[in-house]
Amino acid sequence: MKISKRIIDMQESPIRKLISYADDAKSRGIKIYHLNIGQPDIPTPDYIYDAIKNYSEHVLAYGPSQGLKIARETVAEYLNNMNYDINPDEIFITTGGSEAIIFAMMTVADYGDEIIIPEPFYTNYNGFASMAGLKVIPLLTKVDTGFHLPDENEIEKLITSRTKAILICSPNNPTGTIFTKEEMEMVVKIAKKHNLFVLSDEVYREFVFDNKKQTSILEVDGSAELSIMLDSISKRFSACGARIGYLVSKNRNVMKGVLKLGQARLCPPTIEQIGMIEGYKHMNEFMKQMIEEYQKRRDVVFNNLMKVEGVFTRKPEGAFYVVVKLPVDDADNFAKWMLTDFQIDGKTVMVAPANGFYATPDKGKDEIRIAYVLNVKELEDAIKILASGIKEYNKRFG
Amino acid sequence: MKISKRIIDMQESPIRKLISYADDAKSRGIKIYHLNIGQPDIPTPDYIYDAIKNYSEHVLAYGPSQGLKIARETVAEYLNNMNYDINPDEIFITTGGSEAIIFAMMTVADYGDEIIIPEPFYTNYNGFASMAGLKVIPLLTKVDTGFHLPDENEIEKLITSRTKAILICSPNNPTGTIFTKEEMEMVVKIAKKHNLFVLSDEVYREFVFDNKKQTSILEVDGSAELSIMLDSISKRFSACGARIGYLVSKNRNVMKGVLKLGQARLCPPTIEQIGMIEGYKHMNEFMKQMIEEYQKRRDVVFNNLMKVEGVFTRKPEGAFYVVVKLPVDDADNFAKWMLTDFQIDGKTVMVAPANGFYATPDKGKDEIRIAYVLNVKELEDAIKILASGIKEYNKRFG
Repeated sequence: MKISKRIIDMQESPIRKLISYADDAKSRGIKIYHLNIGQPDIPTPDYIYDAIKNYSEHVLAYGPSQGLKIARETVAEYLNNMNYDINPDEIFITTGGSEAIIFAMMTVADYGDEIIIPEPFYTNYNGFASMAGLKVIPLLTKVDTGFHLPDENEIEKLITSRTKAILICSPNNPTGTIFTKEEMEMVVKIAKKHNLFVLSDEVYREFVFDNKKQTSILEVDGSAELSIMLDSISKRFSACGARIGYLVSKNRNVMKGVLKLGQARLCPPTIEQIGMIEGYKHMNEFMKQMIEEYQKRRDVVFNNLMKVEGVFTRKPEGAFYVVVKLPVDDADNFAKWMLTDFQIDGKTVMVAPANGFYATPDKGKDEIRIAYVLNVKELEDAIKILASGIKEYNKRFG
Repeated sequence: MKISKRIIDMQESPIRKLISYADDAKSRGIKIYHLNIGQPDIPTPDYIYDAIKNYSEHVLAYGPSQGLKIARETVAEYLNNMNYDINPDEIFITTGGSEAIIFAMMTVADYGDEIIIPEPFYTNYNGFASMAGLKVIPLLTKVDTGFHLPDENEIEKLITSRTKAILICSPNNPTGTIFTKEEMEMVVKIAKKHNLFVLSDEVYREFVFDNKKQTSILEVDGSAELSIMLDSISKRFSACGARIGYLVSKNRNVMKGVLKLGQARLCPPTIEQIGMIEGYKHMNEFMKQMIEEYQKRRDVVFNNLMKVEGVFTRKPEGAFYVVVKLPVDDADNFAKWMLTDFQIDGKTVMVAPANGFYATPDKGKDEIRIAYVLNVKELEDAIKILASGIKEYNKRFG
């Protein structure tokens, strides 16, 4: 019995493929610092749990396909506090940010159509594109220029008659780069000229450092008809397991299309929407502390990495990731070796080889992504171990 | 800005299209008996809510993509109590039964491939097929024969080189029919002969009346390699808003493929899996009572419908639906008229026109689906109103 070609061709999670080596290391009693996955260690706020615990409907019934009215009103208020002028009908609650991306892709493009995505990019975009039958056209960005966008010409070169959308993510996973207002405006200008949609993944919107400001697609002039903003509460409230996200668009045809998709799958989880509503009420206090914490972590990771010979990166501007160029030939092999052959005082480090974040073969082969989702003390230790690992690895194989 | 053709072509929920007329009726102060949607009125058991409330992890983190180990073990135990010999690795927890169906479709077939589904069928199969890019090939079943399957030849006639799977649902939504052991064996025999997968939607497995027994695809000899069983806790525990389902397959390639899809979307909701585990512990006591209640309702609906002149149906064998042939030309128009122009003592009835449950145009135009998800007293009143409505409608338009 043969399964479908689309599934056979689908990329396996490159972050997860090292897991068996990590499991082996753990079974040998080795402690692993997990810098490989964006699972925050910050406790989920009590008031979100309390809201979930206070849910008291007799029947845990299907909610509306577009999400509870009060949940959409809450998101609208959050966005309008930033002067984005969004009404609740322009918001669709999804099962995690994942579903928001899948629905957006399916709505703007048909099977075989193309979507341009700056690389390196969040690897699951590949999976979503496979599900929607889209071809990902990578737009290369480079560590030397802090992973900012190339100029207009470079982007326009990639556009064909099958191109339907550009997908951007800012602050960026995996690079930590925040696209400037000018970069966002350039993307909208190109989209407008070529009749493309812009899908804007803004899951890390508040994760910005050094008093920088993220520019939302929602505030770029002339973007209303062509933009879909994608968001999630996973990182904002450290509630990844809640599976609540949403998409926002002022394009009525998009919203009608998304509703069809949403009705087929009935509704997003009901109880967690109640949790989300409570989260937004307390958001400012909670996030301020969290961002300060992440900025400290960013500094520890960046400053300590820069001391390591042969390592190169730019200071990440947001999110909680950084893509780092290592003085090794094959970061995939290095990441594996760190789990199978290296340890200091019974501890080692797991990182994500960056090659999996590129669609262009062989790109990023000497790069890794670090998610700084541990506390400062652990991060200091982890980067020390990583630095020793690099030295030792090069002594043996360099 | 044009949205995708697949979304433009996608069927809008036929159950939901009458909603604005229902809202208008409500705003005129009319009480509506909702027989149009499968949302049970049975309270969700307290122990499920208690398990959700007792969740006490500091971080509501991503769970495993295939679901929590303990959740998969719980499902395995449930299935093994019926002697199905399933291990936890053959189970994949999904976000509702909906996601189980989408994942199964994407895994067994490519864009443009065909899937045979007996009609009338659960309308959202159309939506899932649109998402997966599959063409639904309807296999007509008829009210006269209690919506049982036609013989082997009729099914084989529909098979082409693009056919990849047969999707069956037993007990059936919308017909309430339970396919016999012989029917299930016939489907597997045909699938085997033509190298097809069998997707078996068994969400209503326990909803069987008159001491009948449902035959699971998991107990049909020779089905192991080609079958995917689809299930959900929505109806079993009256927990539709929890969004927990799963699929079960002994085909390792299928499970590997589903894992790729699952990893892309990260994980199903975490807390509700804990609720589910508790639900299965108490399942037998809870469901016994519930099924007795549904059987009473079935009897009330069937017996009272059969007294109405010109109405025809067979006694449903399971689930909580029945498809009924009415003495009207256009059930769509009748259902709308019941909301816009009819009432008795300020009450009316909302039903689902059955045409939307058929893929063949014009089929089921004189049929409706009734979901008996109200208590016996309300159902008696609702069927009385429906009967008067039919009489009055025919007096005016017949």
